[in-house]
Amino acid sequence: MATIKDSVHDHIEISGVAEALLDTPTVQRLRHISQLGTVQLVYPSANHTRFEHSLGVYHLADRALAELGIEGREAERIRAAALLHDVGHGPFSHNIEELTYRKTGKYHDDVEELLASGDVGEILREHDLDPTHIAGLVAGDGQFGQLVSGELDVDRMDYLVRDAHHTGVPYGTIDAERLLRELTFVDNELVLTEGNVQTAESLLLARALMNPTVYMHPVARISKAMLRRASERLLATTDIDAHELRRMDDHDLLVALRTTQATEAFAERYDERRLFKRAIWTELQHVPDDLLDLDHDELRELEATIADRADVPETNVIIEIPDEPSMRESSTRVVVNGEIRNLGAQSPLVNALRTAQRGQWRLGVYTTPSAAERVGRLAAAELGLDIPGGLVTESRQGIHATLDEFE
Amino acid sequence: MATIKDSVHDHIEISGVAEALLDTPTVQRLRHISQLGTVQLVYPSANHTRFEHSLGVYHLADRALAELGIEGREAERIRAAALLHDVGHGPFSHNIEELTYRKTGKYHDDVEELLASGDVGEILREHDLDPTHIAGLVAGDGQFGQLVSGELDVDRMDYLVRDAHHTGVPYGTIDAERLLRELTFVDNELVLTEGNVQTAESLLLARALMNPTVYMHPVARISKAMLRRASERLLATTDIDAHELRRMDDHDLLVALRTTQATEAFAERYDERRLFKRAIWTELQHVPDDLLDLDHDELRELEATIADRADVPETNVIIEIPDEPSMRESSTRVVVNGEIRNLGAQSPLVNALRTAQRGQWRLGVYTTPSAAERVGRLAAAELGLDIPGGLVTESRQGIHATLDEFE
Amino acid sequence: MATIKDSVHDHIEISGVAEALLDTPTVQRLRHISQLGTVQLVYPSANHTRFEHSLGVYHLADRALAELGIEGREAERIRAAALLHDVGHGPFSHNIEELTYRKTGKYHDDVEELLASGDVGEILREHDLDPTHIAGLVAGDGQFGQLVSGELDVDRMDYLVRDAHHTGVPYGTIDAERLLRELTFVDNELVLTEGNVQTAESLLLARALMNPTVYMHPVARISKAMLRRASERLLATTDIDAHELRRMDDHDLLVALRTTQATEAFAERYDERRLFKRAIWTELQHVPDDLLDLDHDELRELEATIADRADVPETNVIIEIPDEPSMRESSTRVVVNGEIRNLGAQSPLVNALRTAQRGQWRLGVYTTPSAAERVGRLAAAELGLDIPGGLVTESRQGIHATLDEFE
Amino acid sequence: MATIKDSVHDHIEISGVAEALLDTPTVQRLRHISQLGTVQLVYPSANHTRFEHSLGVYHLADRALAELGIEGREAERIRAAALLHDVGHGPFSHNIEELTYRKTGKYHDDVEELLASGDVGEILREHDLDPTHIAGLVAGDGQFGQLVSGELDVDRMDYLVRDAHHTGVPYGTIDAERLLRELTFVDNELVLTEGNVQTAESLLLARALMNPTVYMHPVARISKAMLRRASERLLATTDIDAHELRRMDDHDLLVALRTTQATEAFAERYDERRLFKRAIWTELQHVPDDLLDLDHDELRELEATIADRADVPETNVIIEIPDEPSMRESSTRVVVNGEIRNLGAQSPLVNALRTAQRGQWRLGVYTTPSAAERVGRLAAAELGLDIPGGLVTESRQGIHATLDEFE
Repeated sequence: MATIKDSVHDHIEISGVAEALLDTPTVQRLRHISQLGTVQLVYPSANHTRFEHSLGVYHLADRALAELGIEGREAERIRAAALLHDVGHGPFSHNIEELTYRKTGKYHDDVEELLASGDVGEILREHDLDPTHIAGLVAGDGQFGQLVSGELDVDRMDYLVRDAHHTGVPYGTIDAERLLRELTFVDNELVLTEGNVQTAESLLLARALMNPTVYMHPVARISKAMLRRASERLLATTDIDAHELRRMDDHDLLVALRTTQATEAFAERYDERRLFKRAIWTELQHVPDDLLDLDHDELRELEATIADRADVPETNVIIEIPDEPSMRESSTRVVVNGEIRNLGAQSPLVNALRTAQRGQWRLGVYTTPSAAERVGRLAAAELGLDIPGGLVTESRQGIHATLDEFE
Repeated sequence: MATIKDSVHDHIEISGVAEALLDTPTVQRLRHISQLGTVQLVYPSANHTRFEHSLGVYHLADRALAELGIEGREAERIRAAALLHDVGHGPFSHNIEELTYRKTGKYHDDVEELLASGDVGEILREHDLDPTHIAGLVAGDGQFGQLVSGELDVDRMDYLVRDAHHTGVPYGTIDAERLLRELTFVDNELVLTEGNVQTAESLLLARALMNPTVYMHPVARISKAMLRRASERLLATTDIDAHELRRMDDHDLLVALRTTQATEAFAERYDERRLFKRAIWTELQHVPDDLLDLDHDELRELEATIADRADVPETNVIIEIPDEPSMRESSTRVVVNGEIRNLGAQSPLVNALRTAQRGQWRLGVYTTPSAAERVGRLAAAELGLDIPGGLVTESRQGIHATLDEFE
Repeated sequence: MATIKDSVHDHIEISGVAEALLDTPTVQRLRHISQLGTVQLVYPSANHTRFEHSLGVYHLADRALAELGIEGREAERIRAAALLHDVGHGPFSHNIEELTYRKTGKYHDDVEELLASGDVGEILREHDLDPTHIAGLVAGDGQFGQLVSGELDVDRMDYLVRDAHHTGVPYGTIDAERLLRELTFVDNELVLTEGNVQTAESLLLARALMNPTVYMHPVARISKAMLRRASERLLATTDIDAHELRRMDDHDLLVALRTTQATEAFAERYDERRLFKRAIWTELQHVPDDLLDLDHDELRELEATIADRADVPETNVIIEIPDEPSMRESSTRVVVNGEIRNLGAQSPLVNALRTAQRGQWRLGVYTTPSAAERVGRLAAAELGLDIPGGLVTESRQGIHATLDEFE
Repeated sequence: MATIKDSVHDHIEISGVAEALLDTPTVQRLRHISQLGTVQLVYPSANHTRFEHSLGVYHLADRALAELGIEGREAERIRAAALLHDVGHGPFSHNIEELTYRKTGKYHDDVEELLASGDVGEILREHDLDPTHIAGLVAGDGQFGQLVSGELDVDRMDYLVRDAHHTGVPYGTIDAERLLRELTFVDNELVLTEGNVQTAESLLLARALMNPTVYMHPVARISKAMLRRASERLLATTDIDAHELRRMDDHDLLVALRTTQATEAFAERYDERRLFKRAIWTELQHVPDDLLDLDHDELRELEATIADRADVPETNVIIEIPDEPSMRESSTRVVVNGEIRNLGAQSPLVNALRTAQRGQWRLGVYTTPSAAERVGRLAAAELGLDIPGGLVTESRQGIHATLDEFE
């Protein structure tokens, strides 16, 4: 058994298959993948990695198993899945996931191949565990997959608390131990026991507050969009392919961007935190429906057209259209008066949060500060945006970040 | 200048009129008034007092004044009001406030008389401050009263964080420093600056989660109702009057209850934590409207009738009908796109929280465990309650408390 | 099983005999005994009680048992002893322990009688546990008594962290979980395993820093001495005897002091925090040896003589001569290179701390501020103190407290 | 003014010259220099950077200036020095500092050249600040240099608390705010005011406990030694020179080590955490004096000889002989009874800590696990070590780390 000191959960004990997996290059690699990618440019203390997060998820899974009374082979499978659940992440975690998905067809939780091969596959098989089954748990399959990836999974319980600890934003401080103690299975469904509607709501609300403040902070969105664009150019101008990119770590990608001619300008901007600025920042209601349906190539074309008209390099215009907000947690299941109910049906907060998230949705167009006014104007015309009250609304983000200095 | 070490805000510096006020018996008395009264029976660590809370409110007021650039006499007034804002509390804070209000016509924030007399009045006048003006600030009057008592007051900012620290329930952990930094006055109204809708929501949500978990926890409600009833008997059977009761501290009241024959049975129950149990616990929708309008004497009569039918002592039946939930925060003002808006109009969460709070509302009837079944049945008949699915719904409160052992 | 939320250890689970004991008046009474007594006058947030501390000690004992692999009857005994270890405390914990000891011959950990009688005795016997045996564990007897009361006991692990949490003084923040994990029994002795000399030192150092800053803070010492003296008068002038006093709680004692003519002046001083002041405060080296040997009655006589000469009431002069410092932890046992060694022999810090504590020792003479100069002069003469450089050295205690306002 | 959210100090406000400096590549580069280098291999959460630490040091300096009443130009200089104090660090901070010093003659706090050139120099001059003067403050020169680099500097106050927050080891949790409030200048010397001997000791003790547990943890020492050796080979086998190495960041160095043939084996070991193991680990008393005087080249020769005899590659034997422990803090100055005293003269703890640190000193010889026994034996002979009781004593490090799995 190994014992590891964690800044969030204190002492974490690792034994069994998880201890063997810990020493594999596949898991150790996560030490070099930052948990929140470019959020570090907003919250300077947010340098935590997927490695410590994976240890935390393993730990909470282990606690949940103890509470649920799950032991033996089944428990070993879940612990393995918890520790391995993020090995599919590329450099900067979610930041360039869309890009690698487009090219490889794989999201970060598509890990069957990774788990079946190399030393991870070997260790799993040595412990009589089927890599395909573990990969299924990582993807959220089956009764026990809900613990690893679902509305009440230990992944979220760890990252909310951990991101709060490292950013300094307290909103993620949920009562993880209470959640763990109130989990139970009813008819193979993972639910919270009676008396826990507020417990379920608290998880939802924590995410609802962390989202705009941390994960979707405008500076994080801008820098992430810049990183994604630069990585795309890296693929286009070097012999690095998307599969290779996906297996890089943060160091590899940053140095590749710094040392490739086509991306060194971006790398310099990133290193010196001279980020693009918002030329347009507007609400869902002002965006024509057809814009929401554009695919990647169509967006690239629009960006090129706008850049051309504005007489700036093509790389200097980025249009970012986020997906429409979903509210996955609405299907969290809670026991109320003896029956299992969907939180979405039980709690008026769920619908309100969905509406609130739609209200927070913004389309962004980013470019260099000096071109912002011109690009904004031309982009509005090109995209058919009719925005009352200025192209960039809510330009200030309060004091949560060093945003102001760059705008 | 005095410096005081606080477990929540670390070092607190007190100077000027506040330092002089600190040493008065009126303020020192708050050391003996528990902040959360009988919540201590649910959360054993919740033994903090109105004294440390008052220091905290003073400290946050001082921080807010620095951010707002308010200085001189005006600032001294607000600091004095912040330190003094709770001197009107009776023993166990809000727990018996309804009772003393009924008899004295004064709520805890009605402090004009207290501030005008004795050493507090003397000190205020020595510092050229008008006690009536300070009492007005405590009551929330005028532009600056909003800082002391209003939707964005420093009172709430302190108690949420402090109650979280002492109960161990993390939900109250707001970002107080951010709130302070985002306050501003526009047209004499205290508002949050642009970009702070979520900041305002976070304050709301913290309260919405602390409410059912801490402040309105069933065991806290039951014990509070018992304490109120016993205090009423104390007034009825001794020569202690309501004005005197209001100026007691926790020690005085507890010992008076222990040493008065009419209340010693209650005191024993309280000391040994042998609390009443819920005989009825039901939602707003099952409660006839006319019940909600009953006054105190009518309720007492109903209790007496039920006790009589159930053949238990009159003191052993308590009906508790909370006020219908309000959502005072809906009028929090936030700047959005350059205009001041009411949070209730801006944020879909406000209405949802109002609905959620109505959903959490419960009428309770409490009695001894052995009589619970009988009293419940008879009370339902007497009160005209038609409750499907049992008289006590959601009897379990999760693991937040030692509730289960008593029921 | 009951689950209790604690502000220090989060969720605490109680089952078995401990759960049954929890509901006894003997244990519930601890809710009304403050952990640190008059330290509250220095650190306003330090209002925690022996009840929550006892829960914490129970919890850490339970964790230690799991780490040590101790189960069954033996474990139940230790858990019971942990929960009960402080039931012998009188009001204000250690503050008046000397007084009640002088009159009853019992320190707080002499609980055989308490455990054998009443409902505690009944519950223990129902669970086939011998009250005498449990009382022995509380007193530190036998191999397992070391866990409850010894150099490596869970009592200290809880109170250091808890006192830090509630005072705001961080020095007590030890790594309790590491300590628990490194405990083992070798030849029936409780020791720390190899590689833990620093772990043992950290426990020592935490206490060494908390001592002068919290437990022996001058204001805490003065107020404690005043409380002890007032309690002595209470015994002398009423029909309350020492056995009764010992079983009071904080409320009882405070109200008794307030309502007894001979002590009401003290009670007023205490309530209004108008404390005595140091007339003399001097180091061990300036104190004649024979003074250190004076018994209680001889000290009282000296106080009377000084008061008489200074023409102040006898009750207004208090001489406090602390015991010479010991360093109990020097016998903490640690495994070094495979052998058990005494920390005192292994670590140069132990002797240094002993020396440092002697350096911190102070004799104090306390009186009203107005009489301080006169009493100091007369007391120095009467006590034969020859103090270079003034009667009160180091009069300032830094910023840890509101001391200054009273001096 | 920019406001930045920090996980340790909450909101940090930056204005004036510091705000301008914040945006320079020289300061932004610190985002990519880890604060504790390879300590991350022991404490997985320790991924904080020199950037956030520099912000923290700036913040504490700003607080200290406010307490000391220093304003204007002098204050701007000190704030600039605080923010810039670590810009001279190479990749992995102190880990390869010895190496770059040997080749460049510069330690990390030798920053005159760096501050005089480029945009930092420009900004300083624009603000009428002399780069040479600021560099002097960074080096600890003059009265105000003591605040930036000295026994009571804000550097240490930040790193102890920050390292505790990120490793999870609580020992560094000092009371920074108290320290700041107790600083004063007497005769141009920075001292702690009366009543603060324990405050000074607490700083000392925090470092004394963090040292062996974190900074000098055996796994950190081994991995640091490996990194230093690999970096040395990088210089020897590529055209990267020491000046260039010193200006790399962590990404550059890691990728360079991975992509250089002579160092890729090390890089693999590092990435997969397959570290060397202790072949010898022995106390000062067993080490001949002349070994302590060997210079770098002589050590390399010894390593080569041992490797040759053991028939392992030369790169696989590392001898690490730390400097003899010093106790810089012994000259901390504290006011006692009105005079300035050296803490070393006042506190018996200082000498004891010095002795304790000598007791913790270890010479280490590291190699691959499979060769450890053989290399240990041969190295002992070659180095003339006569070690009773085995070559590796105290092989276990308790549970603070994942050490065990690698040995």
